[in-house]
Amino acid sequence: MLLALDETRFRVNIARSFVLYNERMSNRTTPKGARTRADILHTAVDIASVEGLDGLSIGRLASELGMSKSGLFAHFGSKESLQLAAIEEARLRYVKEVIEPALSSPLGITQLYALCTAFLSYIERSVFVGGCFFASAMAEFDAKGPSLVRDRIVECQEQWMMTLERAAEGARANGEFRVDSDSRQLAFELEGALLTANWYFHLFHDATNIDRARRAVRTRLSREATQVGLDLLPLEPQDS
Amino acid sequence: MLLALDETRFRVNIARSFVLYNERMSNRTTPKGARTRADILHTAVDIASVEGLDGLSIGRLASELGMSKSGLFAHFGSKESLQLAAIEEARLRYVKEVIEPALSSPLGITQLYALCTAFLSYIERSVFVGGCFFASAMAEFDAKGPSLVRDRIVECQEQWMMTLERAAEGARANGEFRVDSDSRQLAFELEGALLTANWYFHLFHDATNIDRARRAVRTRLSREATQVGLDLLPLEPQDS
Repeated sequence: MLLALDETRFRVNIARSFVLYNERMSNRTTPKGARTRADILHTAVDIASVEGLDGLSIGRLASELGMSKSGLFAHFGSKESLQLAAIEEARLRYVKEVIEPALSSPLGITQLYALCTAFLSYIERSVFVGGCFFASAMAEFDAKGPSLVRDRIVECQEQWMMTLERAAEGARANGEFRVDSDSRQLAFELEGALLTANWYFHLFHDATNIDRARRAVRTRLSREATQVGLDLLPLEPQDS
Repeated sequence: MLLALDETRFRVNIARSFVLYNERMSNRTTPKGARTRADILHTAVDIASVEGLDGLSIGRLASELGMSKSGLFAHFGSKESLQLAAIEEARLRYVKEVIEPALSSPLGITQLYALCTAFLSYIERSVFVGGCFFASAMAEFDAKGPSLVRDRIVECQEQWMMTLERAAEGARANGEFRVDSDSRQLAFELEGALLTANWYFHLFHDATNIDRARRAVRTRLSREATQVGLDLLPLEPQDS
């Protein structure tokens, strides 16, 4: 029954963006069961951020939590349901830590800059133990065959790109970017700096890579901006 | 005995760069054994490029090749040795497909551009079934604890960054880049475009992302270049 409700929840979410759908759904389980489920998923996403979603077996999670496999099956029913629930939990954490702080800035260059710096802050603060959950999930599933898990990862990544793109479109509409600005190209290039910061920060254990990405973002936005946009760009990185 | 020789081979390679060490080592096994080993590794790197290096168990590989586990153990001795051998095989393929074609261009802006376009061509041609082997390996091991496998991945990634950086330094020394050009920053930003092309090409099944990266590389190099450099930059992407 719980599983059936959760499956519906995922179907509904698929059509919604990070921005439109950024609140936790009302809880349909008992208070005690809900806390347990939340605790389980908190641990699950951190395991997945280090070892990958395919490393997130019910057996592995049961061992980490000191729970029985049958107890976890009662919550999730299958490895795939557990993986989908972990993605949803990660998405809510991402919205809270990256999207929501940036949405307090007005649509346009300041919001785009805020999205990028919020992402870099989220990496630096190790919101997920193993770095960006979605970067890891994308790298793990990019070349794999079709599955519900892969579909959901694709949607999340596309929603993030659309969030960047919408802010860039806003900047163009406001006259903060040049009229010939290509919002998707800009989002692609910004994402390149952000992703590389994520990988290299962890791979080389070197925070210089976060600074490199901040510098890349700032320079790239400056290059796209009109004088109106340049005047709105903060003089110093927000998170340094 | 075979294992011992291979371990020595890895130790020697660690101190060498992609550029200095780009030839296959002479074969120390029998011709028949060597062919078998090469076939095994060819399959192993393609499995790892899709399913990750940790998905490359001796059992998984035995099943794929229709070989016995004991036969594979005779070749590699352990999962870790198999993983290290797969990395070495992948490195040689990378050198052949990306580094060597670009080294025919003189050190400087043309070589840097050639390295980037050779990488994008290598992604587009699916030299590894699952996309760039090293991008996948980096994403898989970036947040994991220390191991010989992780160490080797870090070294390979750093060698690639140094290859880009050296070409950029050459461009500055030749007067093709501005005197205040930051070679490591430039390499970081170029790598961002290349990595994102790799992920998005596979994740979204969309070759537009390769074109976006070509455009990003070209614009970024143009921005770093003096008039001397601009005159050397090919008018059209080499691989489009």
